[in-house]
Amino acid sequence: VTRVLVTGGSGFFGAAAIAALHGFGEVHAVARTPPESSAPGVTWHAIDLLDPEAARSLIKELRPTHLLHFAWNARPGQFWAAKDNLDWVAATLMLYRAFADAGGTRFVGAGTCAEYDWSRPEHVEDQTPLAPATLYGRAKSSTFQLLGAASAQDGVAFAWGRIYFVYGPGEQRGRLVSDIACELLSGGSPKCSEGLQQRDFMHIADYGRAFAALLQSEVQGAVNIASGECRSVRSVVEAIATQIGRPDAPQFGARPSPPHDPPRMSANVGRLRDEVGFRPVFSLEAGVADTIAWWRRKS
Amino acid sequence: VTRVLVTGGSGFFGAAAIAALHGFGEVHAVARTPPESSAPGVTWHAIDLLDPEAARSLIKELRPTHLLHFAWNARPGQFWAAKDNLDWVAATLMLYRAFADAGGTRFVGAGTCAEYDWSRPEHVEDQTPLAPATLYGRAKSSTFQLLGAASAQDGVAFAWGRIYFVYGPGEQRGRLVSDIACELLSGGSPKCSEGLQQRDFMHIADYGRAFAALLQSEVQGAVNIASGECRSVRSVVEAIATQIGRPDAPQFGARPSPPHDPPRMSANVGRLRDEVGFRPVFSLEAGVADTIAWWRRKS
Repeated sequence: VTRVLVTGGSGFFGAAAIAALHGFGEVHAVARTPPESSAPGVTWHAIDLLDPEAARSLIKELRPTHLLHFAWNARPGQFWAAKDNLDWVAATLMLYRAFADAGGTRFVGAGTCAEYDWSRPEHVEDQTPLAPATLYGRAKSSTFQLLGAASAQDGVAFAWGRIYFVYGPGEQRGRLVSDIACELLSGGSPKCSEGLQQRDFMHIADYGRAFAALLQSEVQGAVNIASGECRSVRSVVEAIATQIGRPDAPQFGARPSPPHDPPRMSANVGRLRDEVGFRPVFSLEAGVADTIAWWRRKS
Repeated sequence: VTRVLVTGGSGFFGAAAIAALHGFGEVHAVARTPPESSAPGVTWHAIDLLDPEAARSLIKELRPTHLLHFAWNARPGQFWAAKDNLDWVAATLMLYRAFADAGGTRFVGAGTCAEYDWSRPEHVEDQTPLAPATLYGRAKSSTFQLLGAASAQDGVAFAWGRIYFVYGPGEQRGRLVSDIACELLSGGSPKCSEGLQQRDFMHIADYGRAFAALLQSEVQGAVNIASGECRSVRSVVEAIATQIGRPDAPQFGARPSPPHDPPRMSANVGRLRDEVGFRPVFSLEAGVADTIAWWRRKS
């Protein structure tokens, strides 16, 4: 029997992955507060994973074969330096231990492009040095290295999907695409930096499908999860403004660029494409249209 | 007020450090089972640090200004690959968090030469890559990196003493010097490898003094804790055998060398000597004499 447990199930990534896992065995999900509605056929467990006893009991009782771990502090603007990054490292190690002890066979975790040395414009999983500039990036990269070493000894299959830049329906405010779309839809003229920095953006539904595919594959180790198309932040803002019909509204250059902002963060997606066999469905233009339609319905 | 808390207080390193800390403020020590006798003036707390609630309560109540953290799994032959290395990472992160939250000012942890890339014959703290070959080494190096990133944000002074090879009175069996000395004293002829690999050995009392000095200094970051004298394992065994009066007893070459055993692991001790201001008291010959005398008294 295949029994999947998704942590952070009520979050942006967790919900998208759950939707994409439909049909892959028995799907269970953990959240501090399970959502009122979610994909059909999912069994919810209301647990705070920062409580190690609660996590251990659930794993022991459920005995999942597959674990897809998203739960972490992800509050926009706050998570980079949050003290509880250390708590999430500890909770993740204890979750893994309980899972391995209970006979679990495959553990997939959520990493980040912030694990890499940002002075490198392109990130290749086994070549680009891990040299995180932030506590969040350090917490994720240490978790990756620790679970990699432990799982190799334990005979647990382990993969780690490194997330780049995401957008889409349901994204919380305080992030690039959600804020720009909402400001433009409500008649504002968002102040932007020049926006020349290049990033890889992928729609949340594609992120969900990519993680579901990674979980169902036999690929091990780190895998960049991204579209493979790196473009300027300015071009993303322009796509939103054009589709909303207010192409001249964004005020580029009205804000300074953040200090130390890397000019280019491009994901090499060779492993994701060739080994996992995943390709995104949404182009940026289609994804932006989908996102704007969602905000219009919501308001 | 200076209030020091030493974890692993009943262990080989903890006891030596406590002895050397005499007079440095108020000294407290943690052990699952406090020893029946110990250095005078020490207040003992019977706590299992793998219980995060117990650790947090103690720190909150005691409010130590200085923390010297030795507690870890150190069972000879077993600790390299022990699964609970992950538990000790988690427990150390939680201990640090409680300490920082309670206003602690200086945290010193125990690292290991096993954090370094062992293909390098000499280890310099800020230059030699961290590329641990073992789960134990990975657990220690990740803990170092995580606490380094967190403490820099929190304004907590943080240092990390990397331990090399130790010997001395009170060492448990199952380790080089204790086993060789006991076998030779009881008339045996210990089987050894050729013993050409070179290591840095330092007496446990010097380790205790070095950690006490590091705790009392303002030095931050990683510091190799070693004698600075790297010699062949064979020469160490010969020194023991000669002092016991059985120079021909060790059977060199009767055992294969462990596979992948690095030929030389030399500690650069520039930081320890010049920044911390520490120099060892015992030469290897004096330390071996002291150790043999202890085993003679014990038997």
